[in-house]
Amino acid sequence: MKYELYYWPEIQGRGEYVRLALEEAGAAYVDVARGARGTAAMMKMMDANGTPPFAPPFLKAGKLVIGQTANILLYLGARHGLAPKTEAGKLWVHQLQLTITDFVLEIHDTHHPLGPSLYYEDQKPAAKKRTADFWDQRVPKYLGYFEQLLDDKGGAFVTGRRLTYVDLSLFQIVDGLRYAFPKRMRAFEKDIPGLVGLRDRIAARPNIKAYLESERRIPFNEQGIFRRYRELDN
Amino acid sequence: MKYELYYWPEIQGRGEYVRLALEEAGAAYVDVARGARGTAAMMKMMDANGTPPFAPPFLKAGKLVIGQTANILLYLGARHGLAPKTEAGKLWVHQLQLTITDFVLEIHDTHHPLGPSLYYEDQKPAAKKRTADFWDQRVPKYLGYFEQLLDDKGGAFVTGRRLTYVDLSLFQIVDGLRYAFPKRMRAFEKDIPGLVGLRDRIAARPNIKAYLESERRIPFNEQGIFRRYRELDN
Repeated sequence: MKYELYYWPEIQGRGEYVRLALEEAGAAYVDVARGARGTAAMMKMMDANGTPPFAPPFLKAGKLVIGQTANILLYLGARHGLAPKTEAGKLWVHQLQLTITDFVLEIHDTHHPLGPSLYYEDQKPAAKKRTADFWDQRVPKYLGYFEQLLDDKGGAFVTGRRLTYVDLSLFQIVDGLRYAFPKRMRAFEKDIPGLVGLRDRIAARPNIKAYLESERRIPFNEQGIFRRYRELDN
Repeated sequence: MKYELYYWPEIQGRGEYVRLALEEAGAAYVDVARGARGTAAMMKMMDANGTPPFAPPFLKAGKLVIGQTANILLYLGARHGLAPKTEAGKLWVHQLQLTITDFVLEIHDTHHPLGPSLYYEDQKPAAKKRTADFWDQRVPKYLGYFEQLLDDKGGAFVTGRRLTYVDLSLFQIVDGLRYAFPKRMRAFEKDIPGLVGLRDRIAARPNIKAYLESERRIPFNEQGIFRRYRELDN
Protein backbone atom coordinates (compact mmCIF):
# COMPACT_ATOMS: atom_id res chain seq x y z
CA MET A 1 0.00 0.00 0.00
CA LYS A 2 1.24 3.45 -0.93
CA TYR A 3 0.20 6.21 1.46
CA GLU A 4 -1.18 9.45 0.10
CA LEU A 5 -0.22 12.54 2.07
CA TYR A 6 -2.32 15.64 1.53
CA TYR A 7 -0.84 18.97 2.56
CA TRP A 8 -0.23 22.46 1.19
CA PRO A 9 2.47 22.08 -1.47
CA GLU A 10 4.47 25.24 -0.76
CA ILE A 11 5.33 24.79 2.91
CA GLN A 12 6.70 22.38 5.48
CA GLY A 13 4.04 23.41 7.99
CA ARG A 14 2.26 20.76 10.00
CA GLY A 15 2.71 18.26 7.17
CA GLU A 16 6.43 18.12 7.90
CA TYR A 17 5.98 16.09 11.10
CA VAL A 18 4.23 13.45 9.00
CA ARG A 19 6.81 13.60 6.19
CA LEU A 20 9.64 13.04 8.68
CA ALA A 21 7.91 9.94 10.07
CA LEU A 22 7.20 8.52 6.61
CA GLU A 23 10.79 9.18 5.51
CA GLU A 24 12.39 7.67 8.61
CA ALA A 25 10.18 4.60 8.19
CA GLY A 26 11.10 4.30 4.52
CA ALA A 27 7.37 4.13 3.77
CA ALA A 28 6.09 4.47 0.21
CA TYR A 29 4.03 7.66 -0.14
CA VAL A 30 2.93 10.31 -2.58
CA ASP A 31 2.87 13.96 -1.53
CA VAL A 32 -0.31 14.45 -3.50
CA ALA A 33 -0.75 18.22 -3.53
CA ARG A 34 2.75 18.72 -4.94
CA GLY A 35 1.72 16.90 -8.10
CA ALA A 36 -0.42 18.12 -11.01
CA ARG A 37 -3.95 19.07 -9.91
CA GLY A 38 -3.01 17.86 -6.43
CA THR A 39 -4.35 20.85 -4.51
CA ALA A 40 -7.72 20.50 -6.26
CA ALA A 41 -7.80 16.82 -5.28
CA MET A 42 -7.04 17.83 -1.68
CA MET A 43 -9.82 20.41 -1.57
CA LYS A 44 -12.27 17.89 -3.01
CA MET A 45 -11.55 15.43 -0.21
CA MET A 46 -12.28 18.10 2.37
CA ASP A 47 -15.71 18.60 0.79
CA ALA A 48 -16.58 14.92 0.83
CA ASN A 49 -19.35 13.36 2.87
CA GLY A 50 -18.45 10.78 5.48
CA THR A 51 -15.33 11.71 7.41
CA PRO A 52 -14.01 14.91 5.77
CA PRO A 53 -10.92 16.39 7.45
CA PHE A 54 -11.26 19.89 8.87
CA ALA A 55 -7.88 20.91 7.44
CA PRO A 56 -4.66 19.49 5.97
CA PRO A 57 -2.57 17.52 6.67
CA PHE A 58 -4.40 14.27 6.23
CA LEU A 59 -3.23 10.83 5.19
CA LYS A 60 -4.99 8.31 3.00
CA ALA A 61 -4.05 4.79 4.07
CA GLY A 62 -6.04 2.35 1.98
CA LYS A 63 -9.66 3.21 2.72
CA LEU A 64 -8.83 5.23 5.84
CA VAL A 65 -8.55 9.01 5.71
CA ILE A 66 -6.84 10.27 8.87
CA GLY A 67 -6.63 13.94 9.81
CA GLN A 68 -4.83 15.92 12.51
CA THR A 69 -1.02 15.62 12.61
CA ALA A 70 -0.78 13.90 15.99
CA ASN A 71 -3.53 11.45 15.03
CA ILE A 72 -1.68 10.54 11.83
CA LEU A 73 1.48 9.95 13.85
CA LEU A 74 -0.46 7.81 16.33
CA TYR A 75 -1.50 5.64 13.39
CA LEU A 76 1.91 5.54 11.68
CA GLY A 77 3.85 5.07 14.91
CA ALA A 78 2.10 1.77 15.63
CA ARG A 79 2.68 0.47 12.11
CA HIS A 80 6.28 1.45 11.54
CA GLY A 81 7.99 0.90 14.88
CA LEU A 82 8.03 4.62 15.67
CA ALA A 83 6.22 4.21 19.00
CA PRO A 84 6.29 1.74 21.90
CA LYS A 85 4.15 -1.36 21.61
CA THR A 86 2.48 -1.15 25.05
CA GLU A 87 -0.69 0.88 25.59
CA ALA A 88 1.02 2.95 28.29
CA GLY A 89 3.93 3.68 25.95
CA LYS A 90 1.64 4.60 23.07
CA LEU A 91 -0.36 7.01 25.24
CA TRP A 92 2.79 8.62 26.62
CA VAL A 93 4.35 9.25 23.23
CA HIS A 94 1.05 10.57 21.89
CA GLN A 95 0.75 12.86 24.92
CA LEU A 96 4.19 14.29 24.15
CA GLN A 97 3.21 14.84 20.52
CA LEU A 98 0.10 16.73 21.65
CA THR A 99 2.31 18.95 23.78
CA ILE A 100 4.42 19.62 20.69
CA THR A 101 1.18 20.40 18.82
CA ASP A 102 0.34 23.06 21.40
CA PHE A 103 3.84 24.51 21.07
CA VAL A 104 3.58 24.61 17.25
CA LEU A 105 0.39 26.66 17.52
CA GLU A 106 2.15 29.08 19.88
CA ILE A 107 5.04 29.35 17.41
CA HIS A 108 2.52 30.19 14.68
CA ASP A 109 0.90 32.80 16.93
CA THR A 110 4.18 34.73 17.26
CA HIS A 111 3.55 36.10 13.76
CA HIS A 112 -0.25 35.84 13.86
CA PRO A 113 -1.38 36.92 17.35
CA LEU A 114 -4.49 38.72 16.08
CA GLY A 115 -5.75 35.76 14.11
CA PRO A 116 -4.85 33.42 11.28
CA SER A 117 -7.05 35.23 8.76
CA LEU A 118 -5.13 38.53 8.87
CA TYR A 119 -1.82 39.33 7.15
CA TYR A 120 1.34 39.50 9.19
CA GLU A 121 1.89 43.03 7.91
CA ASP A 122 -1.35 44.07 9.61
CA GLN A 123 -0.32 42.80 13.05
CA LYS A 124 3.38 43.63 13.42
CA PRO A 125 3.26 45.49 16.77
CA ALA A 126 1.18 42.71 18.34
CA ALA A 127 3.57 40.12 16.87
CA LYS A 128 6.51 41.85 18.55
CA LYS A 129 4.78 41.71 21.94
CA ARG A 130 3.69 38.12 21.55
CA THR A 131 7.18 37.08 20.41
CA ALA A 132 8.76 38.74 23.45
CA ASP A 133 6.49 36.76 25.79
CA PHE A 134 7.06 33.61 23.73
CA TRP A 135 10.82 33.75 24.21
CA ASP A 136 10.63 35.00 27.77
CA GLN A 137 8.15 32.41 29.07
CA ARG A 138 7.01 29.80 26.60
CA VAL A 139 10.19 28.56 24.91
CA PRO A 140 11.93 27.94 28.26
CA LYS A 141 8.82 26.16 29.55
CA TYR A 142 8.28 23.87 26.57
CA LEU A 143 11.88 23.15 25.61
CA GLY A 144 12.90 22.96 29.26
CA TYR A 145 10.31 20.23 29.69
CA PHE A 146 11.68 18.11 26.84
CA GLU A 147 15.28 18.79 27.90
CA GLN A 148 14.42 17.48 31.35
CA LEU A 149 12.85 14.33 29.90
CA LEU A 150 15.99 13.64 27.85
CA ASP A 151 18.13 14.24 30.91
CA ASP A 152 16.02 11.96 33.16
CA LYS A 153 16.06 9.10 30.68
CA GLY A 154 19.76 9.45 29.95
CA GLY A 155 19.25 7.71 26.62
CA ALA A 156 19.68 8.83 23.05
CA PHE A 157 15.98 9.61 22.65
CA VAL A 158 13.13 11.16 24.62
CA THR A 159 11.72 7.83 25.74
CA GLY A 160 15.12 6.19 26.21
CA ARG A 161 16.97 3.95 23.81
CA ARG A 162 14.39 3.71 21.05
CA LEU A 163 13.54 6.39 18.51
CA THR A 164 9.89 7.53 18.34
CA TYR A 165 8.07 10.01 16.14
CA VAL A 166 8.38 12.55 18.96
CA ASP A 167 12.14 12.67 18.46
CA LEU A 168 11.62 13.43 14.77
CA SER A 169 9.23 16.24 15.66
CA LEU A 170 11.70 17.71 18.15
CA PHE A 171 14.33 17.76 15.39
CA GLN A 172 11.92 19.88 13.35
CA ILE A 173 11.22 22.21 16.29
CA VAL A 174 14.93 22.88 16.90
CA ASP A 175 15.66 23.34 13.20
CA GLY A 176 12.62 25.56 12.74
CA LEU A 177 13.45 27.83 15.67
CA ARG A 178 17.01 28.12 14.32
CA TYR A 179 15.61 29.22 10.98
CA ALA A 180 13.01 31.66 12.31
CA PHE A 181 14.94 33.17 15.22
CA PRO A 182 18.66 32.64 14.53
CA LYS A 183 19.84 35.26 17.01
CA ARG A 184 17.51 34.34 19.88
CA MET A 185 18.04 30.63 19.36
CA ARG A 186 21.84 30.97 19.34
CA ALA A 187 21.64 32.57 22.78
CA PHE A 188 19.17 29.99 24.06
CA GLU A 189 20.83 26.77 22.90
CA LYS A 190 23.24 26.64 25.84
CA ASP A 191 20.18 25.77 27.98
CA ILE A 192 19.19 22.76 25.87
CA PRO A 193 22.33 20.71 25.14
CA GLY A 194 20.31 17.49 25.17
CA LEU A 195 17.88 18.69 22.51
CA VAL A 196 20.71 20.01 20.34
CA GLY A 197 22.42 16.61 20.54
CA LEU A 198 19.14 14.90 19.69
CA ARG A 199 18.70 17.19 16.70
CA ASP A 200 22.14 16.20 15.41
CA ARG A 201 21.52 12.48 15.89
CA ILE A 202 18.24 12.70 13.96
CA ALA A 203 19.82 14.73 11.13
CA ALA A 204 22.53 12.06 10.76
CA ARG A 205 20.16 9.10 10.39
CA PRO A 206 20.51 7.74 6.85
CA ASN A 207 16.87 8.09 5.77
CA ILE A 208 16.50 11.55 7.28
CA LYS A 209 19.82 12.73 5.88
CA ALA A 210 18.83 11.58 2.39
CA TYR A 211 15.45 13.27 2.77
CA LEU A 212 16.88 16.58 3.94
CA GLU A 213 19.22 16.64 0.92
CA SER A 214 16.40 15.80 -1.50
CA GLU A 215 13.90 18.02 -3.26
CA ARG A 216 11.18 16.36 -1.22
CA ARG A 217 12.23 18.62 1.68
CA ILE A 218 10.63 21.99 1.00
CA PRO A 219 12.90 24.83 2.19
CA PHE A 220 11.78 26.94 5.15
CA ASN A 221 10.02 30.10 3.96
CA GLU A 222 7.78 32.93 5.15
CA GLN A 223 4.48 31.17 4.43
CA GLY A 224 4.96 28.37 6.93
CA ILE A 225 4.93 28.01 10.70
CA PHE A 226 8.56 29.07 11.16
CA ARG A 227 9.09 32.49 9.57
CA ARG A 228 12.19 34.61 9.66
CA TYR A 229 11.22 38.19 10.31
CA ARG A 230 14.22 40.23 11.36
CA GLU A 231 12.13 42.55 13.53
CA LEU A 232 10.99 39.63 15.69
CA ASP A 233 14.50 38.28 16.25
CA ASN A 234 16.16 40.74 18.55
CA MET B 1 -10.65 1.40 40.34
CA LYS B 2 -11.35 5.02 41.16
CA TYR B 3 -9.91 7.51 38.69
CA GLU B 4 -8.06 10.55 39.96
CA LEU B 5 -8.55 13.70 37.90
CA TYR B 6 -6.02 16.47 38.36
CA TYR B 7 -6.99 19.94 37.23
CA TRP B 8 -7.09 23.52 38.50
CA PRO B 9 -9.80 23.61 41.15
CA GLU B 10 -11.31 27.03 40.35
CA ILE B 11 -12.22 26.59 36.69
CA GLN B 12 -13.95 24.33 34.19
CA GLY B 13 -11.19 24.90 31.64
CA ARG B 14 -9.80 21.95 29.73
CA GLY B 15 -10.61 19.64 32.62
CA GLU B 16 -14.32 20.01 31.89
CA TYR B 17 -14.18 17.85 28.76
CA VAL B 18 -12.82 15.05 30.93
CA ARG B 19 -15.36 15.66 33.73
CA LEU B 20 -18.25 15.44 31.26
CA ALA B 21 -16.99 12.09 29.96
CA LEU B 22 -16.50 10.69 33.47
CA GLU B 23 -19.94 11.90 34.54
CA GLU B 24 -21.75 10.55 31.48
CA ALA B 25 -20.01 7.21 31.99
CA GLY B 26 -20.96 7.16 35.66
CA ALA B 27 -17.30 6.45 36.44
CA ALA B 28 -15.98 6.73 39.96
CA TYR B 29 -13.47 9.57 40.23
CA VAL B 30 -11.99 12.10 42.59
CA ASP B 31 -11.39 15.67 41.45
CA VAL B 32 -8.17 15.73 43.41
CA ALA B 33 -7.17 19.39 43.33
CA ARG B 34 -10.56 20.43 44.73
CA GLY B 35 -9.80 18.58 47.95
CA ALA B 36 -7.51 19.57 50.80
CA ARG B 37 -3.87 19.94 49.68
CA GLY B 38 -4.97 18.78 46.23
CA THR B 39 -3.22 21.48 44.25
CA ALA B 40 0.05 20.69 46.03
CA ALA B 41 -0.41 17.02 45.14
CA MET B 42 -1.02 18.02 41.53
CA MET B 43 2.11 20.16 41.34
CA LYS B 44 4.16 17.35 42.85
CA MET B 45 3.08 14.92 40.13
CA MET B 46 4.20 17.38 37.47
CA ASP B 47 7.66 17.42 39.04
CA ALA B 48 7.99 13.64 39.12
CA ASN B 49 10.48 11.63 37.13
CA GLY B 50 9.21 9.15 34.59
CA THR B 51 6.26 10.47 32.61
CA PRO B 52 5.42 13.87 34.16
CA PRO B 53 2.57 15.74 32.44
CA PHE B 54 3.42 19.11 30.92
CA ALA B 55 0.24 20.66 32.31
CA PRO B 56 -3.15 19.79 33.81
CA PRO B 57 -5.52 18.13 33.15
CA PHE B 58 -4.18 14.66 33.70
CA LEU B 59 -5.82 11.47 34.84
CA LYS B 60 -4.45 8.79 37.10
CA ALA B 61 -5.91 5.42 36.14
CA GLY B 62 -4.30 2.76 38.30
CA LYS B 63 -0.59 3.05 37.55
CA LEU B 64 -1.12 5.08 34.38
CA VAL B 65 -0.84 8.86 34.38
CA ILE B 66 -2.35 10.26 31.20
CA GLY B 67 -2.02 13.89 30.14
CA GLN B 68 -3.52 16.04 27.38
CA THR B 69 -7.33 16.31 27.29
CA ALA B 70 -7.83 14.55 23.95
CA ASN B 71 -5.47 11.75 24.98
CA ILE B 72 -7.42 11.21 28.20
CA LEU B 73 -10.65 11.03 26.20
CA LEU B 74 -9.05 8.56 23.78
CA TYR B 75 -8.33 6.36 26.78
CA LEU B 76 -11.72 6.81 28.49
CA GLY B 77 -13.70 6.52 25.27
CA ALA B 78 -12.46 3.00 24.66
CA ARG B 79 -13.22 1.90 28.22
CA HIS B 80 -16.65 3.42 28.76
CA GLY B 81 -18.41 3.03 25.42
CA LEU B 82 -17.92 6.68 24.52
CA ALA B 83 -16.19 5.93 21.21
CA PRO B 84 -16.62 3.42 18.38
CA LYS B 85 -14.94 0.04 18.77
CA THR B 86 -13.30 -0.10 15.33
CA GLU B 87 -9.86 1.41 14.74
CA ALA B 88 -11.25 3.63 11.97
CA GLY B 89 -14.01 4.86 14.27
CA LYS B 90 -11.61 5.52 17.14
CA LEU B 91 -9.28 7.54 14.90
CA TRP B 92 -12.16 9.55 13.45
CA VAL B 93 -13.61 10.50 16.83
CA HIS B 94 -10.14 11.36 18.14
CA GLN B 95 -9.52 13.49 15.05
CA LEU B 96 -12.71 15.44 15.77
CA GLN B 97 -11.65 15.93 19.37
CA LEU B 98 -8.28 17.30 18.21
CA THR B 99 -10.14 19.77 16.01
CA ILE B 100 -12.14 20.84 19.07
CA THR B 101 -8.81 21.18 20.94
CA ASP B 102 -7.60 23.61 18.27
CA PHE B 103 -10.83 25.57 18.57
CA VAL B 104 -10.56 25.74 22.37
CA LEU B 105 -7.10 27.29 22.04
CA GLU B 106 -8.49 29.87 19.62
CA ILE B 107 -11.30 30.63 22.08
CA HIS B 108 -8.68 31.17 24.78
CA ASP B 109 -6.69 33.45 22.48
CA THR B 110 -9.65 35.83 22.07
CA HIS B 111 -8.82 37.19 25.53
CA HIS B 112 -5.09 36.37 25.46
CA PRO B 113 -3.83 37.17 21.95
CA LEU B 114 -0.49 38.52 23.16
CA GLY B 115 0.34 35.48 25.22
CA PRO B 116 -0.89 33.36 28.12
CA SER B 117 1.56 34.90 30.59
CA LEU B 118 0.15 38.45 30.39
CA TYR B 119 -3.00 39.76 32.07
CA TYR B 120 -6.12 40.34 30.01
CA GLU B 121 -6.13 43.94 31.20
CA ASP B 122 -2.78 44.47 29.48
CA GLN B 123 -3.99 43.26 26.08
CA LYS B 124 -7.51 44.62 25.69
CA PRO B 125 -7.14 46.35 22.28
CA ALA B 126 -5.50 43.25 20.79
CA ALA B 127 -8.24 41.08 22.33
CA LYS B 128 -10.89 43.17 20.58
CA LYS B 129 -9.20 42.68 17.22
CA ARG B 130 -8.67 38.98 17.72
CA THR B 131 -12.27 38.51 18.86
CA ALA B 132 -13.60 40.30 15.77
CA ASP B 133 -11.65 37.94 13.50
CA PHE B 134 -12.68 34.98 15.64
CA TRP B 135 -16.38 35.65 15.14
CA ASP B 136 -16.01 36.76 11.55
CA GLN B 137 -13.95 33.81 10.33
CA ARG B 138 -13.20 31.12 12.87
CA VAL B 139 -16.52 30.42 14.60
CA PRO B 140 -18.34 29.98 11.25
CA LYS B 141 -15.53 27.71 10.01
CA TYR B 142 -15.33 25.44 13.08
CA LEU B 143 -19.00 25.29 14.04
CA GLY B 144 -20.04 25.17 10.39
CA TYR B 145 -17.88 22.06 10.04
CA PHE B 146 -19.54 20.26 12.96
CA GLU B 147 -23.01 21.42 11.88
CA GLN B 148 -22.36 19.90 8.45
CA LEU B 149 -21.28 16.60 10.01
CA LEU B 150 -24.48 16.45 12.05
CA ASP B 151 -26.51 17.25 8.98
CA ASP B 152 -24.76 14.62 6.82
CA LYS B 153 -25.22 11.88 9.38
CA GLY B 154 -28.81 12.80 10.08
CA GLY B 155 -28.56 11.10 13.46
CA ALA B 156 -28.82 12.36 16.99
CA PHE B 157 -25.04 12.61 17.39
CA VAL B 158 -21.99 13.65 15.38
CA THR B 159 -21.10 10.11 14.36
CA GLY B 160 -24.72 9.01 13.92
CA ARG B 161 -26.87 7.13 16.39
CA ARG B 162 -24.32 6.58 19.17
CA LEU B 163 -23.10 9.18 21.60
CA THR B 164 -19.33 9.77 21.76
CA TYR B 165 -17.16 12.01 23.89
CA VAL B 166 -17.10 14.47 20.99
CA ASP B 167 -20.81 15.18 21.50
CA LEU B 168 -20.16 15.96 25.16
CA SER B 169 -17.38 18.36 24.19
CA LEU B 170 -19.62 20.10 21.65
CA PHE B 171 -22.20 20.62 24.41
CA GLN B 172 -19.49 22.40 26.38
CA ILE B 173 -18.47 24.53 23.38
CA VAL B 174 -22.04 25.73 22.74
CA ASP B 175 -22.68 26.40 26.43
CA GLY B 176 -19.35 28.16 26.82
CA LEU B 177 -19.85 30.43 23.83
CA ARG B 178 -23.32 31.29 25.16
CA TYR B 179 -21.76 32.26 28.47
CA ALA B 180 -18.83 34.24 27.08
CA PHE B 181 -20.52 35.95 24.14
CA PRO B 182 -24.29 36.00 24.83
CA LYS B 183 -25.06 38.68 22.26
CA ARG B 184 -22.90 37.35 19.44
CA MET B 185 -23.97 33.79 20.07
CA ARG B 186 -27.67 34.66 20.07
CA ALA B 187 -27.26 36.13 16.60
CA PHE B 188 -25.19 33.18 15.38
CA GLU B 189 -27.31 30.28 16.62
CA LYS B 190 -29.71 30.41 13.69
CA ASP B 191 -26.81 29.04 11.59
CA ILE B 192 -26.28 25.99 13.78
CA PRO B 193 -29.68 24.45 14.56
CA GLY B 194 -28.17 20.97 14.62
CA LEU B 195 -25.59 21.86 17.26
CA VAL B 196 -28.18 23.65 19.38
CA GLY B 197 -30.36 20.54 19.26
CA LEU B 198 -27.38 18.39 20.17
CA ARG B 199 -26.61 20.67 23.11
CA ASP B 200 -30.15 20.24 24.42
CA ARG B 201 -30.09 16.46 24.04
CA ILE B 202 -26.82 16.25 25.97
CA ALA B 203 -28.06 18.56 28.73
CA ALA B 204 -31.13 16.33 29.19
CA ARG B 205 -29.22 13.08 29.63
CA PRO B 206 -29.76 11.89 33.21
CA ASN B 207 -26.12 11.72 34.29
CA ILE B 208 -25.23 15.03 32.68
CA LYS B 209 -28.35 16.74 34.04
CA ALA B 210 -27.52 15.56 37.56
CA TYR B 211 -23.93 16.71 37.13
CA LEU B 212 -24.87 20.17 35.89
CA GLU B 213 -27.15 20.65 38.90
CA SER B 214 -24.51 19.47 41.36
CA GLU B 215 -21.69 21.32 43.04
CA ARG B 216 -19.26 19.23 41.05
CA ARG B 217 -19.98 21.54 38.09
CA ILE B 218 -17.88 24.66 38.68
CA PRO B 219 -19.71 27.77 37.40
CA PHE B 220 -18.29 29.61 34.38
CA ASN B 221 -16.08 32.51 35.46
CA GLU B 222 -13.46 34.93 34.23
CA GLN B 223 -10.46 32.73 35.01
CA GLY B 224 -11.33 29.94 32.58
CA ILE B 225 -11.36 29.50 28.80
CA PHE B 226 -14.80 31.07 28.33
CA ARG B 227 -14.82 34.56 29.82
CA ARG B 228 -17.58 37.11 29.68
CA TYR B 229 -16.08 40.49 28.92
CA ARG B 230 -18.74 42.93 27.82
CA GLU B 231 -16.34 44.86 25.57
CA LEU B 232 -15.65 41.72 23.50
CA ASP B 233 -19.33 40.91 22.96
CA ASN B 234 -20.59 43.50 20.55
